[in-house]
Amino acid sequence: MALPAVSEIRVRVNYSETDQMGVVYHARYLVWLDIARTEHLRRSGMSYRELEAAGFRLAVGEVAIRYRRPARYDDEVKVRCWVRSLASRRIDFGYAVEDAGDGRLFATAFTSLMVLDRDMSPTRLPERIRDLLKPVPDPVRLQFTTETQRT
Amino acid sequence: MALPAVSEIRVRVNYSETDQMGVVYHARYLVWLDIARTEHLRRSGMSYRELEAAGFRLAVGEVAIRYRRPARYDDEVKVRCWVRSLASRRIDFGYAVEDAGDGRLFATAFTSLMVLDRDMSPTRLPERIRDLLKPVPDPVRLQFTTETQRT
Amino acid sequence: MALPAVSEIRVRVNYSETDQMGVVYHARYLVWLDIARTEHLRRSGMSYRELEAAGFRLAVGEVAIRYRRPARYDDEVKVRCWVRSLASRRIDFGYAVEDAGDGRLFATAFTSLMVLDRDMSPTRLPERIRDLLKPVPDPVRLQFTTETQRT
Amino acid sequence: MALPAVSEIRVRVNYSETDQMGVVYHARYLVWLDIARTEHLRRSGMSYRELEAAGFRLAVGEVAIRYRRPARYDDEVKVRCWVRSLASRRIDFGYAVEDAGDGRLFATAFTSLMVLDRDMSPTRLPERIRDLLKPVPDPVRLQFTTETQRT
Repeated sequence: MALPAVSEIRVRVNYSETDQMGVVYHARYLVWLDIARTEHLRRSGMSYRELEAAGFRLAVGEVAIRYRRPARYDDEVKVRCWVRSLASRRIDFGYAVEDAGDGRLFATAFTSLMVLDRDMSPTRLPERIRDLLKPVPDPVRLQFTTETQRT
Repeated sequence: MALPAVSEIRVRVNYSETDQMGVVYHARYLVWLDIARTEHLRRSGMSYRELEAAGFRLAVGEVAIRYRRPARYDDEVKVRCWVRSLASRRIDFGYAVEDAGDGRLFATAFTSLMVLDRDMSPTRLPERIRDLLKPVPDPVRLQFTTETQRT
Repeated sequence: MALPAVSEIRVRVNYSETDQMGVVYHARYLVWLDIARTEHLRRSGMSYRELEAAGFRLAVGEVAIRYRRPARYDDEVKVRCWVRSLASRRIDFGYAVEDAGDGRLFATAFTSLMVLDRDMSPTRLPERIRDLLKPVPDPVRLQFTTETQRT
Repeated sequence: MALPAVSEIRVRVNYSETDQMGVVYHARYLVWLDIARTEHLRRSGMSYRELEAAGFRLAVGEVAIRYRRPARYDDEVKVRCWVRSLASRRIDFGYAVEDAGDGRLFATAFTSLMVLDRDMSPTRLPERIRDLLKPVPDPVRLQFTTETQRT
């Protein structure tokens, strides 16, 4: 069965997400990424709720996000999500956060998820679950700055 | 007058910041970075409140954060903050988020702030304000992964 | 045209809304009430975005909420919303927060909204807007405790 | 030993707490009440962290809050907290949320906490813990409206 390599969710910006600059507060985007990632897993054939019940945790190990245009109150936002790469104990996701109206980018993002067990120790994702996830090339350039690359 | 090149704030983790994994939800760290950055500006001689009143906005253009150990409910968290680099329309900050008890790292982070005017258009930070900020070398290696460096 | 006297929205509980008790953090329900109220206004013929553009603000003056059963991660939640009473400078809303699956109550709530102008001073809602809102009897008993009634 | 019957915390409003009305988003006050309540318990001789470790949960059963003046970005806010009444399975708290500068009220609030066990079933608070809490008369009138009193 062909599964969607890039999934998509939509959220409507609510008042609690705005700040006094009149735009969406930057930390709120990470919640949208979380919702998009959860939905990507669900559409790939596993719900995060079941994954937790089976004793696994996916903990965010790293986030990088570049903001391009501010989203505003009542905007309809589309978040596209895909798997960038897979390792035995780690899943990397890419995201494009866009205006559902005109398709322009609000932000691009990357998150690295660590696979943990109930005790929060690193563990391997079972083969059957990993097989559900298919890495694809970025459909959008994420374009983080060179600053981010400094170690 | 010698000003602190690396400032420091402390926050106590409250219940609203935890999630059902029993740790602090990852997006919450961005709020701590915001509080640390605001305090860094205040100690450098400018309050963000005054900066806004003077017609300037500092909008987050990019965030990168690496999580190392989970912070938990009731932990006292110390956030150290410094300026990494300065450009006419941009300020880059670095952060070390640490356990105030044993000093171990919870996370390291980087944010790039864009200087905007009232209409959210890029503008230059006045010389007298820029002069208050002194870039320093990272006191802690931020260590983002090579994945983050992919563009 | 007959408008719905009781409107309805659905939200899926996301991870950021849970706390370490394994349930939805109580303050999050107020955001759902806000989304429900906004949608009630929209379906009644006015969007809150337009209302703000026209110079009006609806500020929350009072909230009372009684929690009955905890909502959990990934639950689908239904929020019903209605106008309880209308005054020239005030709109009172009632809410039933329910499990979209089995219809059982998570919470009942009441909010009183104050009509303000751009300067945050009390003002009257225009007749044509007030006419769009029809108070109805509570479809669900809100059942606040006697404690709440102490003044 | 005489314990403080009314405890007090201070919080500085951060940017994430504001909304596009330029004031603190109303749901944020509930987090401040939570912080104040936690601190009240700590000063009374029990930490909520220890209480949870001992198998108890205090779940919010009801909240009523009246907003009087909006708190704004960078304001220093003082929250006074006290026990209003005690039952075997329930603790009722009162709160005064004030401007730490001029002492004027931002809000008054009431919360009812249910004592639960690990399985989220109602249980009794041990005598030695209940003895630490001393109900006092409200130092400030909470003044909820008659609407809230409708059942």
